[in-house]
Amino acid sequence: MSNIFTLPELDDLRMSEAARPLFEAVKRHIAENVAPITEEYFRLGEGRTDRWSFAPGQLELLDAAKAKAKAAGLWNFFLPDDETGQGLSNLDYAYIAAELGKSPLASETLNCSAPDTGNMEVLERVGTPEQKHRWLEPLLAGEIRSAYAMTEPDVASSDAKNIRTRARLDGDQWVINGEKYYISGAGDPRCKVMITMVRTSDEGPVSQQQSQILVPIDTPGVEIVGPMHVFGEDHAPRGHMHIRFNDVRVPRENILLGEGRGFEISQLRLGPGRIHHCMRTIGKAEVALDLMVKRGSSREAFGRSLIMLGKNLELVSRARIEIEAMRLIVLKAAKAMDVLGNREARVWVSLAKAMIPEKTCQIIDQAIQLHGATGISQWTPLAELYHDVRHLRFADGPDEVHHMVVGRHELGLH
Amino acid sequence: MSNIFTLPELDDLRMSEAARPLFEAVKRHIAENVAPITEEYFRLGEGRTDRWSFAPGQLELLDAAKAKAKAAGLWNFFLPDDETGQGLSNLDYAYIAAELGKSPLASETLNCSAPDTGNMEVLERVGTPEQKHRWLEPLLAGEIRSAYAMTEPDVASSDAKNIRTRARLDGDQWVINGEKYYISGAGDPRCKVMITMVRTSDEGPVSQQQSQILVPIDTPGVEIVGPMHVFGEDHAPRGHMHIRFNDVRVPRENILLGEGRGFEISQLRLGPGRIHHCMRTIGKAEVALDLMVKRGSSREAFGRSLIMLGKNLELVSRARIEIEAMRLIVLKAAKAMDVLGNREARVWVSLAKAMIPEKTCQIIDQAIQLHGATGISQWTPLAELYHDVRHLRFADGPDEVHHMVVGRHELGLH
Amino acid sequence: MSNIFTLPELDDLRMSEAARPLFEAVKRHIAENVAPITEEYFRLGEGRTDRWSFAPGQLELLDAAKAKAKAAGLWNFFLPDDETGQGLSNLDYAYIAAELGKSPLASETLNCSAPDTGNMEVLERVGTPEQKHRWLEPLLAGEIRSAYAMTEPDVASSDAKNIRTRARLDGDQWVINGEKYYISGAGDPRCKVMITMVRTSDEGPVSQQQSQILVPIDTPGVEIVGPMHVFGEDHAPRGHMHIRFNDVRVPRENILLGEGRGFEISQLRLGPGRIHHCMRTIGKAEVALDLMVKRGSSREAFGRSLIMLGKNLELVSRARIEIEAMRLIVLKAAKAMDVLGNREARVWVSLAKAMIPEKTCQIIDQAIQLHGATGISQWTPLAELYHDVRHLRFADGPDEVHHMVVGRHELGLH
Amino acid sequence: MSNIFTLPELDDLRMSEAARPLFEAVKRHIAENVAPITEEYFRLGEGRTDRWSFAPGQLELLDAAKAKAKAAGLWNFFLPDDETGQGLSNLDYAYIAAELGKSPLASETLNCSAPDTGNMEVLERVGTPEQKHRWLEPLLAGEIRSAYAMTEPDVASSDAKNIRTRARLDGDQWVINGEKYYISGAGDPRCKVMITMVRTSDEGPVSQQQSQILVPIDTPGVEIVGPMHVFGEDHAPRGHMHIRFNDVRVPRENILLGEGRGFEISQLRLGPGRIHHCMRTIGKAEVALDLMVKRGSSREAFGRSLIMLGKNLELVSRARIEIEAMRLIVLKAAKAMDVLGNREARVWVSLAKAMIPEKTCQIIDQAIQLHGATGISQWTPLAELYHDVRHLRFADGPDEVHHMVVGRHELGLH
Repeated sequence: MSNIFTLPELDDLRMSEAARPLFEAVKRHIAENVAPITEEYFRLGEGRTDRWSFAPGQLELLDAAKAKAKAAGLWNFFLPDDETGQGLSNLDYAYIAAELGKSPLASETLNCSAPDTGNMEVLERVGTPEQKHRWLEPLLAGEIRSAYAMTEPDVASSDAKNIRTRARLDGDQWVINGEKYYISGAGDPRCKVMITMVRTSDEGPVSQQQSQILVPIDTPGVEIVGPMHVFGEDHAPRGHMHIRFNDVRVPRENILLGEGRGFEISQLRLGPGRIHHCMRTIGKAEVALDLMVKRGSSREAFGRSLIMLGKNLELVSRARIEIEAMRLIVLKAAKAMDVLGNREARVWVSLAKAMIPEKTCQIIDQAIQLHGATGISQWTPLAELYHDVRHLRFADGPDEVHHMVVGRHELGLH
Repeated sequence: MSNIFTLPELDDLRMSEAARPLFEAVKRHIAENVAPITEEYFRLGEGRTDRWSFAPGQLELLDAAKAKAKAAGLWNFFLPDDETGQGLSNLDYAYIAAELGKSPLASETLNCSAPDTGNMEVLERVGTPEQKHRWLEPLLAGEIRSAYAMTEPDVASSDAKNIRTRARLDGDQWVINGEKYYISGAGDPRCKVMITMVRTSDEGPVSQQQSQILVPIDTPGVEIVGPMHVFGEDHAPRGHMHIRFNDVRVPRENILLGEGRGFEISQLRLGPGRIHHCMRTIGKAEVALDLMVKRGSSREAFGRSLIMLGKNLELVSRARIEIEAMRLIVLKAAKAMDVLGNREARVWVSLAKAMIPEKTCQIIDQAIQLHGATGISQWTPLAELYHDVRHLRFADGPDEVHHMVVGRHELGLH
Repeated sequence: MSNIFTLPELDDLRMSEAARPLFEAVKRHIAENVAPITEEYFRLGEGRTDRWSFAPGQLELLDAAKAKAKAAGLWNFFLPDDETGQGLSNLDYAYIAAELGKSPLASETLNCSAPDTGNMEVLERVGTPEQKHRWLEPLLAGEIRSAYAMTEPDVASSDAKNIRTRARLDGDQWVINGEKYYISGAGDPRCKVMITMVRTSDEGPVSQQQSQILVPIDTPGVEIVGPMHVFGEDHAPRGHMHIRFNDVRVPRENILLGEGRGFEISQLRLGPGRIHHCMRTIGKAEVALDLMVKRGSSREAFGRSLIMLGKNLELVSRARIEIEAMRLIVLKAAKAMDVLGNREARVWVSLAKAMIPEKTCQIIDQAIQLHGATGISQWTPLAELYHDVRHLRFADGPDEVHHMVVGRHELGLH
Repeated sequence: MSNIFTLPELDDLRMSEAARPLFEAVKRHIAENVAPITEEYFRLGEGRTDRWSFAPGQLELLDAAKAKAKAAGLWNFFLPDDETGQGLSNLDYAYIAAELGKSPLASETLNCSAPDTGNMEVLERVGTPEQKHRWLEPLLAGEIRSAYAMTEPDVASSDAKNIRTRARLDGDQWVINGEKYYISGAGDPRCKVMITMVRTSDEGPVSQQQSQILVPIDTPGVEIVGPMHVFGEDHAPRGHMHIRFNDVRVPRENILLGEGRGFEISQLRLGPGRIHHCMRTIGKAEVALDLMVKRGSSREAFGRSLIMLGKNLELVSRARIEIEAMRLIVLKAAKAMDVLGNREARVWVSLAKAMIPEKTCQIIDQAIQLHGATGISQWTPLAELYHDVRHLRFADGPDEVHHMVVGRHELGLH
């Protein structure tokens, strides 16, 4: 048996020469077009009266940056296919994503935001011409946004057998009933469609009882109950919505790939999606370490700079060590996807997903501690970073499930 | 030298017989008068239009519960003096505070909320008759609330030498200039006065350069810049306010105890205040463990209840072990304050403060992980508990400073 | 249901007035009679030629200290019964045991060494007059030593169902076959008898299939295969022996209490035995912290004393905090045994056993790190302490089993 | 400034094509020539009467394996220079060293044991023709062994200023006085020479006060006081010796490179030496994980295999994750040495050294815990592995010093 941990093909972690100009262009775009608008974008947001719409001027700022990116060819490069995007390898994308993770707006300006990236990838690979025309084209153009409705409130969603939202065929229509929550972005006025995971059968193999269906968000019966909070924040206007499906009817042809193929589609999106999250998380860890060093070097207590007091310098060292370890792991997982394909690289993906959000939370937490109260205030991005990354420890499969995948694989090696 | 770790006088950790009826009455009050209104109180709050006032009905609910507590004699018992309160020992209060920590409203219904408790205690001990008449009486009656303005944004406030807000005498008035932040409760419409830590001299011993001054919140020049966030939440309407003092003038007699005695007053309040926080934190850890067990027992994945999967049961055990260890430590620190006085018990207080918020954060975090996304939603109190307790790791002296106190004391033992 | 964590009867952790003179006498005995001979005792041992006997002079030193202890009435006080010992409560014994743990010889000079204490306690409670005469009397007199043969090499001994050594009745004799290992003290030339756990039946309730039988160590068929190492050390001449029972025949009346009552006897000894270990472990943690502070204060690097570099002072603080927490937990577990009895206090015992060796290992390990290479040399007791306490993490039930007991109990509370 | 963490030149971690046949040959050699003799070698050792010599047959076994390696060209390949060895890059050597770390004898059979490798490297680079003839040639031939005398018992040796052993010129001779300890291998009857770090001046820059001198071990005045223990073991017959230098006289020309250049030489050896240790440590971590999985899969308790109980499977996953992270870090540090040179790669070396022994200790410790008492016995290599790796946490600079290097470098980046 080939051992995925000793394959020589996975040891070259270099960015391709072809990707380097893109990598440099993205960094330049962030520095020149995104960083300068970030503060104003959020300040505008604070002043709005209707929390569930954007403030005047916000989308204009964003759209201007999007236009610049598009004009520079920095657009949709997440798609690993030559015809619809720039066909980056996962490895090349990893380097870029780590940069994107450092900025709260960069991804969107490049049309590379979750969950749109995953949704576009799925549509690109399995969509019918009609589905592509109606949904993929405006998504690729950055004109609309989308959501992915998977998680349900009443069950341990790490075990897929538990999906309870049901769709049954009634003539030419799927009739959907059930409840989903933490549907990120579904509050955004630009969000037009949800890819929805449903149960379409109780029989046959467990992995063939689910399907994925396109549901326009304005379909009658789609009830947005309200926003779920993330540690007290609702992230309006995009939100993480709690949604009920009350006899929601969509045409039969809105199903993706076919009945009973919901899991198959999940496999398609989850590997890259999880790795994208991890890649961006490395960037967030870098931001936290950077803030920690800056703050610690500029403040004094007891006659020394904070960073030289007690264990602080060792924490800086440990953070740097962990960041370099995480970076190498995520690069290698990306390389594994490139070389082995999503299925065979599955254990490498779980390995990265189980490692990176947990360690990054610790680094951000230490940066917070060094800042004192300012560390949890709106004056630094640390609290927001913490919430993002803490959330990731149970999104897309909790740490525990990924450890189970890695552990079981290890038993199989012996 | 007597060793504070081997004094036999500190080994009896029993609640006094005299306090037991009060302890039982408080538990009954929470169950009968507080628990039933809690959900409605917060639901009312969600619906309000002006975030910086209470919603109609909220204060009425609270006042009714306060009236019941007052009628039952459950009022102001935090004051360790017979004439103005029930004269509880710190040890007896510890048992009660752990119960209070389990409820977000209980403390206030008993007039036992921070920072009012500390402010009342200070006024009771060092206030002039006039100061007591004007501020202590309505505080003891639960008619007004108060704030404590100590932390400053621009300095490492764990080193007291750094206080920069200044007061200078101009005739019969103190003129105050400076900036404070995270002034909890200063947004509450009922908050009428702030005890404000200021620098009144640059000469003499460092510990005699500060003073504490009573500043009515409506004094001209008190500029409430806005709320500081705690992990994205502003906790309106009470808030944690950012305040500027622009030539704020108050009468000379508003000083507490006398010029240069600011630290002396701090010593008075900080020991008990820190222990009160720790006591309540034990209650919060109990809530988290309770939720963890309940959730873990009621959900299934992979054919077993969640609590029996992987490391979960061991986490429950470790949480219980830590809770019992924390409880004993806080009881012993309280006993030390009773037997040795605040000054001599200082190391015991630091020991508890360095231990309890850190470990409790871990327990709450594990409870969150077991809940999945629900754990960070508004559907459980876990996110709010986490923020409270995480905040405590740098409030009233960061963990690191308390470890320094304990460590230096240990060196002194050898 | 009564909650063992909130019983007021367990909150008074004071040593009894009656025990204090004994406590002080033991401390004096260690200082005056044990400390002065310790170095010589071990130096003599190093020079011996036959590793499996004592060096000339070693036992004489020990016997002289034993004689002093006996003359001073400091003898057999572990026995919780008035007629044969001093009837100490577990709580009182806890205070003394923490002192014993600081010295490698103190326990033996007081006839309080494991496993003799447990063996004597069992014989005292369930032995026949004949068994008492033959074995208990010389043990109580400190004339012989004994072993406890429970652990087996081929099975996970934390699950008692796994015991494979068998005894079958053949006329008036038990015939024993099987294999035991890590039988501590069985190499000691003074060791005369082993209490041996055997399987006597495969039927009936699992907890009634085992028995305990007295086996004189010189019985034909008892084959001492050799010493088991503990991290490379064989601890000659006492040793941790690997023993085979090859058709070992002992009289029928050598059974303790009766056939099928092996577990019942285990319950008797394991609670106190585990707590005794934990008590002594607190003393070892104190020794490690003491050495850490002494070394760190007397060495310099980079212009500061070691203890003031980096995280060292915080480690000292954390060690002190953990030691105080462990001390309180073990005192409370001892109190629980006194008040509730062994069976009801079982969860408290597991709680202490799961907590204390693990945390103490960390403290000793940190003390080692601060000493550099000297920390693992024969020039400090740290390496030996580490091995002792590390061993304890799987002796008498591994941490994991004790966490399971605490965790399951917690589920039962809800 | 170039950032050592983002240099594209360091991202290709592939073994060179040229090295792969060597890598495969080494694995084959270990499997065919070393593994089969390992058990017998140690069994022979146990039976010897003089602990400070080898048992009859031991060296013969070893020499036969060495002869096979030599014949196969697997000899001295650690030397990064074409004329005297096979000129492996550090990266290529890293892959091989991880294999060597899995076997206690493999390194020696390939003439790749510490400290001989470092000593040969130093002699090869800075030795005079005469020094090379007398010492390097027999070392390269595997005919003699050597020691490196640096660490001193009375000072914190992580700060080089503290070296106290002195050498003064007296005519044509260096006269050396002082004390060294933990001089590994100096008890080996084959050890003929020590490279000795001494202070030759108290003036001038601190980094030019030391020198390194070749001292034949049979020089009059070299007093081997005795073996230092490593957690109770003396590792006879090689030992870790405590040595006094009493007016030891060696010819003036025994100095290496020149007076005051001791640190310069240290820089030469320490980088690769530390990385070699880390590389081998990865192999040890693999052994521990392998044993953990095998044991856990073959034992049962409570009706399940051990590995499926509680947190065990997650520990397996975490060990695998850490091993892969460590492997990538050590490969990248090796690559950095190849690309940047020892001096510029210094931070990468410290980063690996601070990370790998600490994490590996945890993995071995967990493997021990799963084995129960067998885990610390002579029946598995775990106890020995633990001691080796634990020792490494303060050998060649304690973790704390390496964290200081990484931390200070990080401050410099900002």
